[in-house]
Amino acid sequence: MGKHLTKRSEDYSKWYNELVVKADLAETSAVRGSMVIKPYGFAIWEKMQAELDRMFKETGHQNAYFPLFVPKSLFEAEEKNAEGFAKECAVVTHYRLESDPEREGKLRVDPKAKLEEELVVRPTSEAIIWNTYRGWIQSHRDLPLLINQWANVVRWEMRTRLFLRTAEFLWQEGHTAHATKEEAVAEAKQMQEVYATFAEEFMAMPVVRGAKSESERFAGADDTYTIEALMQDGKALQAGTSHFLGQNFAKAFDVKYTSKEGKQEHVWATSWGVSTRLIGGLIMTHSDDAGLVLPPKLAPIQVVIVPIFKNEEQLETISEAVEVIVKELKAKGVSVKFDHRETMRPGAKFAEYELKGVPVRIAMGNRDLENGTVEVARRDTFEKKTISKDEVVSYVADLLEEIQVNLYTKALTFRNDHITEVNSFEEFKNAIEQKGGFVSAHWDGTEETEEKIKEATKATIRCIPNDAKEEEGVCVFSGAKSSKRVLFAKAY
Amino acid sequence: MGKHLTKRSEDYSKWYNELVVKADLAETSAVRGSMVIKPYGFAIWEKMQAELDRMFKETGHQNAYFPLFVPKSLFEAEEKNAEGFAKECAVVTHYRLESDPEREGKLRVDPKAKLEEELVVRPTSEAIIWNTYRGWIQSHRDLPLLINQWANVVRWEMRTRLFLRTAEFLWQEGHTAHATKEEAVAEAKQMQEVYATFAEEFMAMPVVRGAKSESERFAGADDTYTIEALMQDGKALQAGTSHFLGQNFAKAFDVKYTSKEGKQEHVWATSWGVSTRLIGGLIMTHSDDAGLVLPPKLAPIQVVIVPIFKNEEQLETISEAVEVIVKELKAKGVSVKFDHRETMRPGAKFAEYELKGVPVRIAMGNRDLENGTVEVARRDTFEKKTISKDEVVSYVADLLEEIQVNLYTKALTFRNDHITEVNSFEEFKNAIEQKGGFVSAHWDGTEETEEKIKEATKATIRCIPNDAKEEEGVCVFSGAKSSKRVLFAKAY
Repeated sequence: MGKHLTKRSEDYSKWYNELVVKADLAETSAVRGSMVIKPYGFAIWEKMQAELDRMFKETGHQNAYFPLFVPKSLFEAEEKNAEGFAKECAVVTHYRLESDPEREGKLRVDPKAKLEEELVVRPTSEAIIWNTYRGWIQSHRDLPLLINQWANVVRWEMRTRLFLRTAEFLWQEGHTAHATKEEAVAEAKQMQEVYATFAEEFMAMPVVRGAKSESERFAGADDTYTIEALMQDGKALQAGTSHFLGQNFAKAFDVKYTSKEGKQEHVWATSWGVSTRLIGGLIMTHSDDAGLVLPPKLAPIQVVIVPIFKNEEQLETISEAVEVIVKELKAKGVSVKFDHRETMRPGAKFAEYELKGVPVRIAMGNRDLENGTVEVARRDTFEKKTISKDEVVSYVADLLEEIQVNLYTKALTFRNDHITEVNSFEEFKNAIEQKGGFVSAHWDGTEETEEKIKEATKATIRCIPNDAKEEEGVCVFSGAKSSKRVLFAKAY
Repeated sequence: MGKHLTKRSEDYSKWYNELVVKADLAETSAVRGSMVIKPYGFAIWEKMQAELDRMFKETGHQNAYFPLFVPKSLFEAEEKNAEGFAKECAVVTHYRLESDPEREGKLRVDPKAKLEEELVVRPTSEAIIWNTYRGWIQSHRDLPLLINQWANVVRWEMRTRLFLRTAEFLWQEGHTAHATKEEAVAEAKQMQEVYATFAEEFMAMPVVRGAKSESERFAGADDTYTIEALMQDGKALQAGTSHFLGQNFAKAFDVKYTSKEGKQEHVWATSWGVSTRLIGGLIMTHSDDAGLVLPPKLAPIQVVIVPIFKNEEQLETISEAVEVIVKELKAKGVSVKFDHRETMRPGAKFAEYELKGVPVRIAMGNRDLENGTVEVARRDTFEKKTISKDEVVSYVADLLEEIQVNLYTKALTFRNDHITEVNSFEEFKNAIEQKGGFVSAHWDGTEETEEKIKEATKATIRCIPNDAKEEEGVCVFSGAKSSKRVLFAKAY
């Protein structure tokens, strides 16, 4: 079948790349670092979008759309932000092609069509959006302004990996404006919690909620709140971030409002985003050597039904019974596929749906028909059970919930088993190198120590957990006093 | 209020621009020719997307996502297509900015970060998609391949107008591959019909289904099927197109399949798209001098409820009664807004929701409370009616349907009144100049005549209607024989 996967224990990175391609999620494209998201992968993204969009709207946000291009003079207005992204900006300099006089039938850039001002392809949209907000915000009555955008962005990354790091990616970016610092901080924290809820309840991916250290903050932010997940290979994945931007953009773009007291004040800002990177996180949280494992809440196909038949007549009889089950499952809101292709054997179909991570497989053969049963197999544990045809719908509905819970529990156990408290740099290095996962350690709070630890171990501070307890201690590296443990890990 | 609109009879174009901005649909941006779609405008687009996406999926299509950038060498592969779009391509030539040594705190393009091959920002995605399809299609079993993409595209237009013609716009583009010519033609025609159904049933915008003349075809297509709508000012709007692409892209990108008979054959292609331009068509089909008029099926807010009160206590009593109505309307799937702002008078609210085209307004005051009634006003005819509180929910549900039908009927009557059959060039010119609308005329089928008529009258062939009858006649311009009438009009 050409579908054999490298084992995770052999080469995790190779397993990941193969799985993304073989499960029809995505593939590399002719454009350096850009991927094609294939229909099956995009269907997962659509499910993610639908849930996130609902959650954003329930918390009062509206969608809008801002330009792809940012004039260079706007882009550079907020200096830290500009500096942070300058090295990875794709830049449009011309607006026309013409026939190439030296290569018949070919085109070249028309040198006469040079733009007066170069346009940056948005790596993030704060600049163009805050330039727009200046016109939208006059009074305290215009606040809060709660906007989200679903869009593509471009960051010219040198080392790319499907979903995890691509030159172009799809994401949502929320951009909000508030009258007070307190409201903006509350908003940024609220969106961190929305992301965490989404990750845990829908992706079945446990996350640590925390704040970034200064050196890991978003360029232009006063604070970055993050959710950090742990992948099966012991590396961390930053899965979503929410930024408190202070008044940095409001000042750079001169966005002021008249307060209730009649005073002119700069507004306070947040921005927050998650991207198609989440699909990479989903894969590396649950999948196994047989292929994808998808949580039922995000699986494009939740149940597949495979008939086992020797001839047309058998297929027909089985199909009649299956159609009843299909109808009832659909009525319960379960997405179900009846795969009655005659060009493929049941065993090959089983392997295909295992590879694609369909949570539940129902098989029905001639003997089942006689006995009034079906065989139900779950993808997460490979367990099979023979169930009465009449009970299969409610059984499957319950099973889908059980699988969702089981995946989360399993991932949570793995994650919790991979948080190691250390009290010396020796222990730190051992934990990072031999066990992987998060290392919980005291840190002296300086960028210098952070940098030295990174040089020595490749581990970075993933976050200062929201629930970190006050605890007297000394920095594992410098020995200086510390009052909190932070989480380190190697990361994607 | 600064909300006064220019009258349509004074200056239709000015009315349109003012309305788009004042109704909070969109505005121009800092990027030449690109617009910002504001939340209210974007909410209409979301409603359009949801319905279209459902219709695409019901006809067997799946969504996917392809790169924004197209390497120049791929872009130029299908020569007619490349030639057609070359003059309006934004081109990325560099991938990095650096500090400008001559302007402190400013950035410039890093000359060392020049791309080896320039990247075209997609004006349409045939090239990148067909280059990808080569890897996806081997056998007749891989066909048909039915894919759609929701995306942004860029066409560097010199004269832009909000929604109607912008440098960047949002659209969907379907790209399908088929084993036979017949299947591809059937697909292209099916999608034309999907668009027509959407326009008529959801936008309440009647359209003529037809084929484009050769000179108006999509660059690279063998046939372009179009839906053409008529705006209130007598100009036509091309609202959606579906292209039969023959084997042009399959040959340019060498996409072949093995047939059932074991032969290698080039596949057959279609592509089809509608864009945010539809919002422009929606506006110019229904709206009036008081503002937007939205068909209920696409209105972000279908019903607004405005309380009329003199004090807090009255507002509270009214609110209690209103909340019951709100709940019942929502249960019926009606989107309803209760506007209880105390900072704005009812009259100002009425004007605002008229401007924004909310189909139904319910007002409830103290006297209503005493009588157990509410006042229901419809946006399309401005009629008002006093209705018993207990009947208002079913009354409003029916009224929304009635408004949807009324808008379509009104637009259809206007459109039919503006199709003029002419039999001489004199009549042709009179009809185009004095009456506007579609002119149905015999045409000799030559590009030369088409061009001359355009020069003389600015009218172009909008389409050869699908339902054009065979009819002996002579071309209004050349006098040569013709067997069919075609539709001419000035167009957006």
